[in-house]
Amino acid sequence: MGRWQPDARGRLEKAAMELYRERGFENTTVAEIAERAGLTERTFFRHYADKREVLFGGSNILEQFLVRKVDEAPAAMSPMEAIVAALTGVATEIFEERHEFAQQRQAIIAANTELRERELIKLASLATATAEALRRRGVSDPAASLAAEAGMAIFKIAFDRWVNGPAERPLSDIIQESMQELSAVTTPGQSATSESLAGQGV
Amino acid sequence: MGRWQPDARGRLEKAAMELYRERGFENTTVAEIAERAGLTERTFFRHYADKREVLFGGSNILEQFLVRKVDEAPAAMSPMEAIVAALTGVATEIFEERHEFAQQRQAIIAANTELRERELIKLASLATATAEALRRRGVSDPAASLAAEAGMAIFKIAFDRWVNGPAERPLSDIIQESMQELSAVTTPGQSATSESLAGQGV
Repeated sequence: MGRWQPDARGRLEKAAMELYRERGFENTTVAEIAERAGLTERTFFRHYADKREVLFGGSNILEQFLVRKVDEAPAAMSPMEAIVAALTGVATEIFEERHEFAQQRQAIIAANTELRERELIKLASLATATAEALRRRGVSDPAASLAAEAGMAIFKIAFDRWVNGPAERPLSDIIQESMQELSAVTTPGQSATSESLAGQGV
Repeated sequence: MGRWQPDARGRLEKAAMELYRERGFENTTVAEIAERAGLTERTFFRHYADKREVLFGGSNILEQFLVRKVDEAPAAMSPMEAIVAALTGVATEIFEERHEFAQQRQAIIAANTELRERELIKLASLATATAEALRRRGVSDPAASLAAEAGMAIFKIAFDRWVNGPAERPLSDIIQESMQELSAVTTPGQSATSESLAGQGV
């Protein structure tokens, strides 16, 4: 059992996701996940600190990736353009290939209050880190905070639409569409219903 | 001790806020709050379910008030106008008189992870309820969700600026200013720094 296990992490993730869906996150133990994956609990804990990390282990990578994309955005980009570029970069390089996993993960999180709260905290942390990255670009407050919060609102809503839609529709397209819709919604004097947007070729 | 206590709730709130600031939320017991207020624990529990409710007991009132304001906004108002009207209504009728309490509360919450998370969850719940109110006005998704999330981003940032600023500057003014700034930030081709806003009379 001490031998190297090919793709142990992938097998543990698959087993965990199956069990969370079958019996709920709260009713699944690490011992059961390891057993389903044909591995030991010890191997589980070499890959994950706890059973929640199977769902949130990617949060730090996502945050670092997003911040780096904002840092690397061309200086001529406005704060909002830099954020949308970073979000579509994240979409393309992290999420597009993982539609099924994202769907399963979303369903598991929706079924558990503690996990829903953890997801909100993750988004708030992303907003804080993104605002900080904008300040490094010389964007002052409140523009930095507002753009970062608006970016997370777009990401949250676009992600939700992507997860609940067909895999063929790229998340990056939905993010850009949501950005246009937010822009329409926040423009004074616009009613910004789907109808008025449809007329604008959105 | 069973007698009616004049303004027991106000005395308990004052005692709790003092103790949370002096020794931290996590190191304060209900027994200590009651003692400081010159009341019994039993009286405390007639007013609050637990020590966290001293800080979050107003959440339901806030949500109901905000939703009612969105419901009552004139039909001609755009989704975003309805939300800003609701937020400024909440500011005027609930918060303006409570600047010092809001400052104390914010400092207590900032010092405690659990309370910061609770505050995020409260905001997310407000966004959900506001989006629902917009749908009742006939606003379709994603405009309803985007406007609601944008509204909460404005509220969060405006509230923070109000709490950390002088009591004389009304929260409702800061909300309206933040709305204009969000609009500038999300307009394509706008860099939306404070400088460019200053030139627009914001």
